[in-house]
Amino acid sequence: MLKPNTHYAELKTSYLFSTVIEKTEEYKANHPDKKIYRLGVGDVSLPLCDAVIKALHGAVDDQASKDTFEGYMPECGKPFLREAIAGYYKNFGVGLDTDEVFVSSGACDELADIIDLFDLSNTALVMEPAYPAYVETNTLAGREILHIKSDESNGFIPLPDENIKADIIYICSPNNPTGVVFDRPTLKKWVDFANSHGSVMIFDAAYEIFIEDEKFPHSIYEIEGARSCAIEICSLSKTAGFTGTRLGYTVVPKDIIRGGMSLNVMWTRNRLSKTNGVSYIIQKGAAAVFTPEGQAQIKDNIRVYKNNARMITDALDKVGIWYTGGKNSPYIWVKCPHNMKSWEFFDYLLNRAQIIGTPGAGFGECGEGYFRFSAFGDPEDTKEAAERMKELLKE
Amino acid sequence: MLKPNTHYAELKTSYLFSTVIEKTEEYKANHPDKKIYRLGVGDVSLPLCDAVIKALHGAVDDQASKDTFEGYMPECGKPFLREAIAGYYKNFGVGLDTDEVFVSSGACDELADIIDLFDLSNTALVMEPAYPAYVETNTLAGREILHIKSDESNGFIPLPDENIKADIIYICSPNNPTGVVFDRPTLKKWVDFANSHGSVMIFDAAYEIFIEDEKFPHSIYEIEGARSCAIEICSLSKTAGFTGTRLGYTVVPKDIIRGGMSLNVMWTRNRLSKTNGVSYIIQKGAAAVFTPEGQAQIKDNIRVYKNNARMITDALDKVGIWYTGGKNSPYIWVKCPHNMKSWEFFDYLLNRAQIIGTPGAGFGECGEGYFRFSAFGDPEDTKEAAERMKELLKE
Repeated sequence: MLKPNTHYAELKTSYLFSTVIEKTEEYKANHPDKKIYRLGVGDVSLPLCDAVIKALHGAVDDQASKDTFEGYMPECGKPFLREAIAGYYKNFGVGLDTDEVFVSSGACDELADIIDLFDLSNTALVMEPAYPAYVETNTLAGREILHIKSDESNGFIPLPDENIKADIIYICSPNNPTGVVFDRPTLKKWVDFANSHGSVMIFDAAYEIFIEDEKFPHSIYEIEGARSCAIEICSLSKTAGFTGTRLGYTVVPKDIIRGGMSLNVMWTRNRLSKTNGVSYIIQKGAAAVFTPEGQAQIKDNIRVYKNNARMITDALDKVGIWYTGGKNSPYIWVKCPHNMKSWEFFDYLLNRAQIIGTPGAGFGECGEGYFRFSAFGDPEDTKEAAERMKELLKE
Repeated sequence: MLKPNTHYAELKTSYLFSTVIEKTEEYKANHPDKKIYRLGVGDVSLPLCDAVIKALHGAVDDQASKDTFEGYMPECGKPFLREAIAGYYKNFGVGLDTDEVFVSSGACDELADIIDLFDLSNTALVMEPAYPAYVETNTLAGREILHIKSDESNGFIPLPDENIKADIIYICSPNNPTGVVFDRPTLKKWVDFANSHGSVMIFDAAYEIFIEDEKFPHSIYEIEGARSCAIEICSLSKTAGFTGTRLGYTVVPKDIIRGGMSLNVMWTRNRLSKTNGVSYIIQKGAAAVFTPEGQAQIKDNIRVYKNNARMITDALDKVGIWYTGGKNSPYIWVKCPHNMKSWEFFDYLLNRAQIIGTPGAGFGECGEGYFRFSAFGDPEDTKEAAERMKELLKE
C-alpha cells in the first residue's frame, strides 16, 4: 500500500497569493463598476523590452527551419547564456567559471529543486516574515525549520545567533517582503557564521537590480568567504519582466564542499538526471537581457518601478505610516495603521479604496500586523492608489 | 555541519547520453573528414510545424505590448492549454476534468518532481531495461528500487508478480528503450495489480503518437480501473518536436486516494508551492499542437519518423538481426550481433560505419548485449545508415 507524503497535511490549506486573488475576484463580482488598483502580488506590469522580443522572434524562427532547429538543451543551460550571466557578474567584481552558473526555469522552481542537494536531517533557518517557498518546500521534505524573527527591534535584519545550529540558511536581499537590504558588514557576519558552522546559505538575489546604493552588494559573492558557503539564486522575473516568460539562474561555486562532496558536481549531476533544460527560445530571449541594448532597456523599466515605489512611500510619509523598503527595493513593508491585523487592513484597503496589497501575515506569524506593497504595478494605477491612500489614511 | 544528500554517491558517475556524446565528439576530433549518422540519443530532427511557429510568434508579440502582456502563469497551466489537452484525450474515449490535467516543462522534469507525492518508505518497481530517470530520481530520494527484468523470455513485457510488493510502478508504453507496446489485456493485469495492492502506477506515454494498431491503448485511462491508480505523464517532445522547446503534461485523476489523501489535491498544492508555471509563450505554442491544423502537421512529421523506423528494420531483417519495436514505436531494440557487448557494438558501429546508436547497457544491467536505434534521425542520414548496416552486418 502506497503511503503518500504526509507532510502535505502540514502545509497551510490556502496559499497566500491564491487567497488574495480569490478575495479580489469576489470583490470584483460584487462591485463590477469599481476599478481595482493592484499593489499586491509581485507581478510586473511592463512588457518585455524590444531587445528580448527581437531575440525571442529570432529563436522561434530558428525552430522553424531544419538547419537552425534546436533539440535537447544542455541540462545546465546553453553555453551562450551561462557565459552571458557569468559576464554580468563581472559588473559586481565577481568572477565565476561558466560551469558554476546554471540556467533555471525561475527562482521559484529552483528554490524547490535545490534543496535536493541536502540530507533530510538538516535544519533550515528562515528569517520571518519570508517568501513562503522557503518554508513550504522544506516542510514537504520533512525538514525541521528554525524560524528567527525579523522585526522592528532588529530593523528587520537579524544577525547570526551562536545558539542556533542551522544547516541551511535562507537570506533574501533585497528582501521580500520587507524591502530591507542587507549591507556588507551584516552579510559578512552571516558568511562567517555559515563557514564556521559548515552551513550552506541560499542567497535569494531576485531583486538585486533595484540596488543603487554602493553599500549594498548585488551578489553574495561580493562578500569574502561566500564562495565556500553560498548558493545564489536569481531570476529575470523582476529584472526583465520574465514573470510569465520564465527564466532564472543559479550559482553553485566549486568551493562549497560538504561531507567531502562538491555541491557544484552534485548539482550538475542533479540536472543531468532531473531536467532536459530550459526552452531554447526562452534562453535566447534571456541572453538578450545581458546585451548592452537589453541592459539599457530593462533599466528604463526599473526606473518606472522605482518611481512607483517613490509615489507609495511619499504617500506613506505624508500620512505618517511606518514602513521599511521602497529604496533599493521594489517592496514596501508597512505597519498597519490603528493596530489593524494584516487581513483586516487588506479588507479595509480593498473596500474603502479598491487597493490590493499583500497581507503580511501570509509571510509568517511575525508578519501579522504588517502589509506589503509592491512597486510593480501600473504607473497610473499606482499614482491613483497613492492619492487614495493619502486621502483614506490621513484620518 | 550540513550533511549533503549522500545518495548522489549511489548514482553512476557518467550519464548514458553524455557518454555517448563524449565518445562521438572524440571520434569526430580524430576523424574530422568523416560524416556521422546519428541514430542515437532520441532527439528529433524535424523543425516545429507551421501552426506552432505561428502561435509562438503571436505569443512573443503578446509579450511586447502592455495590453496583451502575460505575467505570472497559473501554476498548473493556462486554462486554454489544460482544456486543449483534455480535449485531445477525447480522441481515445477518455474523459478528463480540466483540473486533472497539469502542464509541465516536459516529461523528464515531471518524472523528477512527481515522486514528491510519495513517502520515502515506498518502493519503486522498474522494469529494466528502462529510461534512466526512473531509477535515478528514486535513488536520489533514497527509495528502495525493485528491478524486474524484461527480456526475450517475456518478450520484453513483464507481467505482475504477486510476490513483489511495489508501491510505485513505472510502465512506459510504447517503451523506451525496447520499442515494445503493452496491449490492453496486459495493462489491465497491471492496473488490477496496482488497485489491489494500493500501488500507484506512473504511466509514461511519451511515445503514444506512434501507436497505429487498435489493440494498443494511447492512454492508460483506456483501461478500466486506471483512474484510481494511475498517473500519466506525457510530453510534446516526440509528438511535436518540442525536445528543445519544452512542454509536457501530466494527468492526476481525482480518483486516486491513498492514506485518505487525494493525489490530485496534493499535486495541485505541490505546484502552488514549487513552481510559477510554464512559459506563456511555450504554452501558446503547445496549444497550437492540439488544433486540427497542428494535428495534421505533426502527423506528417510522425510519418517521416515511421518511415525511418521501417528503413532500419528492413536493414535488420535483411541481415537477420533480432529486434523488438519499430512498429507503433520510434525505437528499435537490437540484439548485438556476434555476442558483442553494448559498448563494444557502439564502438564497432561508430568506427566501421560512423553510425551512432545507444548502448543497451546504459538502460540497466539486463540491457547488456542490446542496442537501441532511434527513428528520430534525419531521413537521408537514416537511409544511408541503413545501407551501411546492411553492408557491415551481412558478414
